[in-house]
Amino acid sequence: MFVLFISFSVCNGQVIKAEKILFETGIAGDATPVLVERILKADKNPISEIKFEKGTYHFYPDKGFEKFCYLSNHGDLMVNTPFPILNMENLTIDGQGSTFIFHGVVIPFLIADSKNIIVKNLSIDWQDPFYSEGLIVANDEKNKTFDMKISEEYPYDIRNGQIFFIKEYYQHSLGQSILYNPKRRAITFNTEVYTPITTKSKTSKTFNLDKIQYKYEYDKRDLGFKNIGFEYGITVEELEPGLVRVYGHKKEMPPVGHILTMKGEQGLNRVAPAFSVAHTIGFSAKNINVHHAGGMGMIAENSEDLILDNFNVTPSQGRMVSTTADATHFVGCRGKVVLKNCTFENQLDDASNIHGTYQKIVDVLDEYRIGVRMGHHQQKAFVIGQPNDHLGFVRLSNSFFPYNKTTIKNIAYINNRYQIITLNEKLPQDVQPGDLVENLDGYPDLLVQNCIIRNNRARGLLISNPVNTVIENNFFSTEMEAILMPVESGHWYESGNATNVIIRDNVFQDCQHSGFNRGVIRFDTDDDNENIAFKDISIINNTFNHFDNLILEVTNTDGLKFTNNTITHSGTFPLLYPSNPAVRIAYSKNMNIDKNIFKGKEKTDLLLEIDGSMSNLK
Amino acid sequence: MFVLFISFSVCNGQVIKAEKILFETGIAGDATPVLVERILKADKNPISEIKFEKGTYHFYPDKGFEKFCYLSNHGDLMVNTPFPILNMENLTIDGQGSTFIFHGVVIPFLIADSKNIIVKNLSIDWQDPFYSEGLIVANDEKNKTFDMKISEEYPYDIRNGQIFFIKEYYQHSLGQSILYNPKRRAITFNTEVYTPITTKSKTSKTFNLDKIQYKYEYDKRDLGFKNIGFEYGITVEELEPGLVRVYGHKKEMPPVGHILTMKGEQGLNRVAPAFSVAHTIGFSAKNINVHHAGGMGMIAENSEDLILDNFNVTPSQGRMVSTTADATHFVGCRGKVVLKNCTFENQLDDASNIHGTYQKIVDVLDEYRIGVRMGHHQQKAFVIGQPNDHLGFVRLSNSFFPYNKTTIKNIAYINNRYQIITLNEKLPQDVQPGDLVENLDGYPDLLVQNCIIRNNRARGLLISNPVNTVIENNFFSTEMEAILMPVESGHWYESGNATNVIIRDNVFQDCQHSGFNRGVIRFDTDDDNENIAFKDISIINNTFNHFDNLILEVTNTDGLKFTNNTITHSGTFPLLYPSNPAVRIAYSKNMNIDKNIFKGKEKTDLLLEIDGSMSNLK
Repeated sequence: MFVLFISFSVCNGQVIKAEKILFETGIAGDATPVLVERILKADKNPISEIKFEKGTYHFYPDKGFEKFCYLSNHGDLMVNTPFPILNMENLTIDGQGSTFIFHGVVIPFLIADSKNIIVKNLSIDWQDPFYSEGLIVANDEKNKTFDMKISEEYPYDIRNGQIFFIKEYYQHSLGQSILYNPKRRAITFNTEVYTPITTKSKTSKTFNLDKIQYKYEYDKRDLGFKNIGFEYGITVEELEPGLVRVYGHKKEMPPVGHILTMKGEQGLNRVAPAFSVAHTIGFSAKNINVHHAGGMGMIAENSEDLILDNFNVTPSQGRMVSTTADATHFVGCRGKVVLKNCTFENQLDDASNIHGTYQKIVDVLDEYRIGVRMGHHQQKAFVIGQPNDHLGFVRLSNSFFPYNKTTIKNIAYINNRYQIITLNEKLPQDVQPGDLVENLDGYPDLLVQNCIIRNNRARGLLISNPVNTVIENNFFSTEMEAILMPVESGHWYESGNATNVIIRDNVFQDCQHSGFNRGVIRFDTDDDNENIAFKDISIINNTFNHFDNLILEVTNTDGLKFTNNTITHSGTFPLLYPSNPAVRIAYSKNMNIDKNIFKGKEKTDLLLEIDGSMSNLK
Repeated sequence: MFVLFISFSVCNGQVIKAEKILFETGIAGDATPVLVERILKADKNPISEIKFEKGTYHFYPDKGFEKFCYLSNHGDLMVNTPFPILNMENLTIDGQGSTFIFHGVVIPFLIADSKNIIVKNLSIDWQDPFYSEGLIVANDEKNKTFDMKISEEYPYDIRNGQIFFIKEYYQHSLGQSILYNPKRRAITFNTEVYTPITTKSKTSKTFNLDKIQYKYEYDKRDLGFKNIGFEYGITVEELEPGLVRVYGHKKEMPPVGHILTMKGEQGLNRVAPAFSVAHTIGFSAKNINVHHAGGMGMIAENSEDLILDNFNVTPSQGRMVSTTADATHFVGCRGKVVLKNCTFENQLDDASNIHGTYQKIVDVLDEYRIGVRMGHHQQKAFVIGQPNDHLGFVRLSNSFFPYNKTTIKNIAYINNRYQIITLNEKLPQDVQPGDLVENLDGYPDLLVQNCIIRNNRARGLLISNPVNTVIENNFFSTEMEAILMPVESGHWYESGNATNVIIRDNVFQDCQHSGFNRGVIRFDTDDDNENIAFKDISIINNTFNHFDNLILEVTNTDGLKFTNNTITHSGTFPLLYPSNPAVRIAYSKNMNIDKNIFKGKEKTDLLLEIDGSMSNLK
């Protein structure tokens, strides 16, 4: 380690000395201990820059700095990091083109309660991936079996007929799975016919389970409950070392030559995101390759002004998969959120998901205080806001927009499911247990620009953002929706509707090809009513080169401009839903669908389908 | 809640107002939220006393205060408590005879970083126990099966041939098990012939596991590794609701009429001790009944001056089992540790275990700093001492006593397996990675007096204490050793030898009856050499009423007085090891065995057996 030089800055009238440090490749065998040692001293001996001599550096968990992390949409766990960027300011980490290889369950960059952090010019990869691949080499539709060849990179054992893939410091069951077509290096066409593998089924042998009483609402989907009454529905037999036969799968047998990617049981399989950014103002990642992560490429929570520029999630080492969850994900973030010049490919969930959080009022404690419950187990411990943030009160059965709002005085954290929010003003008189709250200040100005999003499982962009959203000049080729804008309450408790959305100059190539009957762009609500959820949406000048019919699916919208788009028929795959229209609209008003060029194969009377009560359709 | 009155005290020249609070039975439905709310305000609004109107109070986890707890010899977990006694001073909690019923995974009393805490006059129980019972109703030695009747109190499901017992907020597999004889309400005689049930066996189907490389030492017994290559060796079939047959057990079939107690898998089954006391000076528990806990009755760590008086661990509701682990356990405690007038019965581990911790030196970082590794996964995160404590350097192959000592300057916690200790003085020149350190100040003056210890699994007292130990006027009837004094390094990393031990005026009734060939009182080392481990031991004026021969087993001892003891033959059970002597001594010196009264049945030439090089035997 070399101190390159010491810079000076002035903060609150005090001169701050901050070191610029260069780490050389001498530490590459395990860079973790020296990094941790130096970073932990930064409170007394500040650092403005950490540079790495260009090289390949390994990072092991054994001497990493430990922190218990509640991470949205990940498992919650005690985890290690070599970069504990906690309560730091004005720090740049520059890999100068280095590759960082991580080992085991670690979070490479754990950034919290910090300001102005820049990470640039480096690639992140893992020695062993948090998923495994099986090449389908035979199948037997009559006997309902299929055979997989497992390469030497994926050690396993078989216990009582279940396969477990063993990694350095990690293991996973078959669990969640999806097929890849190695020729396209993308999700197999119509994969929903074959996957996911049906690993669990109900057990008939239960005794007196109904005698167990719970005083309060509990979450049957949480880890402590989800396996009650369920057992493995498949069995795995080893035919020879590295060749296994799977029995009991209930969908169609997966086709020979395709690759089954398996990442273990839901709830256990997101443990090592590449970047965690929380309660941080100003974060920038530039020229970054995330080749893999056991979770997301980046999970950002309660943060402000986040810019990802040439931040690429893309697989390495011949693997089908990059990250095992979303490429990026933003919860309760504000200010600017920018994704530009990025490639998000081959990850096992959305390219990005941007939303807030609904929390359920379970106790009205007095005129100023409510007890709230975290609805989804992957939102445990999420703190909804900071003092003086605007808190909206929502009753989704009445409206997708808040019926009242007030401001937060403070929040007392009791446990990961329960917090007490004290307000500056008195509670609305009509507040009821069961109502939801959302943070109205916890949404960003969102820009997604010049990005390539392809070959991943799930959506491109999943956005619940009532502030401003611009999606322009991107390329999409996703197995589900390219863009999904939901209002969702009952399952994920991800808050936010959509207003002021501009989707322009994008190319959509053969999205939604995995078998679902849904549009390439879709607006959707959980609640089946006519209330307005989405406002002021512009979809203009885009190109849809699509194998199937349904391009746009709209519901509960006030103000949609769908103009100057070009729709062509790709012929890449057979049509899945030939009776679909190109555009489907329900419970909406002030629609303007005009000046689009249609070169598709469908009959013209299928171009537009309208359900529900409609007015002001142009 | 009523504030009874406000007391005043003077601390550092400041007058401190502290409230005395009475909680009435109106809160009994779930006493947790009001308690948590009030206790969390205690930093600004101090409390000197919390009293409860006599009654039965329930405590649920849903609104309990959350803390991540690393607990010695327990699982490490994020857990809730209704009594977060953290950084408090001079507090008395008085149940006035109340019963506290806990629900799920909670720690009733979580006491840390506090001073002068008194808890008295209350009983602790759980709605659902953390173990389950099966009454053996049939067995078939030929087909190697046995049948269990499961009562309605123990809901279960069976998944892929494995039984899981489902509780409120908890579940466990069959896992660790032992037989109880319901007539004696004690561990079945010779239970080692039947139990533990052999639940796991090696799987033959592994692929490329040897390709996984670890850069550093790792713990194969830790949860992330222990199941690799192992599968369930038994299967369970439901014959009718509440009646199950177990196949595949490899020991003898358990006898009809006995009760199999099952507490789930080791490493997962200690999650809710009744009392956790850590880094606390002055703790007293008086007139307490711990009827149950999912772990220990009390686990105390790094604390000072602890007095348990009439602290009784004893089952309720007709259950065979009280706590599922030790009744009490003290790690790294100093000052006085007193257990007096206590009953410890029917717990599934020792009545008390008192020891320090060995940590392994893995890095010599510079002249003043060492990196140490926590050896056992249930010692994770244990901090070995505080500044200026004496740290002993130990190389057990050379000596059971430290070869050098120095003092701690500070300890940097990196993660639960790795800490960096900085010393005030330079390291010994001959220190080597692999050497152990122990805290020489982390042992107590121990008094165990007027206690009844019986009907539990495992030992009575397991003591590694080089300071002072007095064990007097107690009654023991345990299935393993009544008193075991070990020097142990390779498995549990529990430090401490034994010096200045007085064992007097106790009654030992039919201990060591579960099948092991060991003495009622035993001194033992892991390392097979002639070095002295134990010094100045007095065993005087005790009564041993024993069914078998071997009373005292001594090794590596310098200075033993075994005098004025009375040994009688109980006839309670058949002899297990008729060729044993009454006293077995090896590698010891300065032995004084005199004036004992022997009324046993053994031939007189079996009274004393001496192995190894001996001198100064009187």
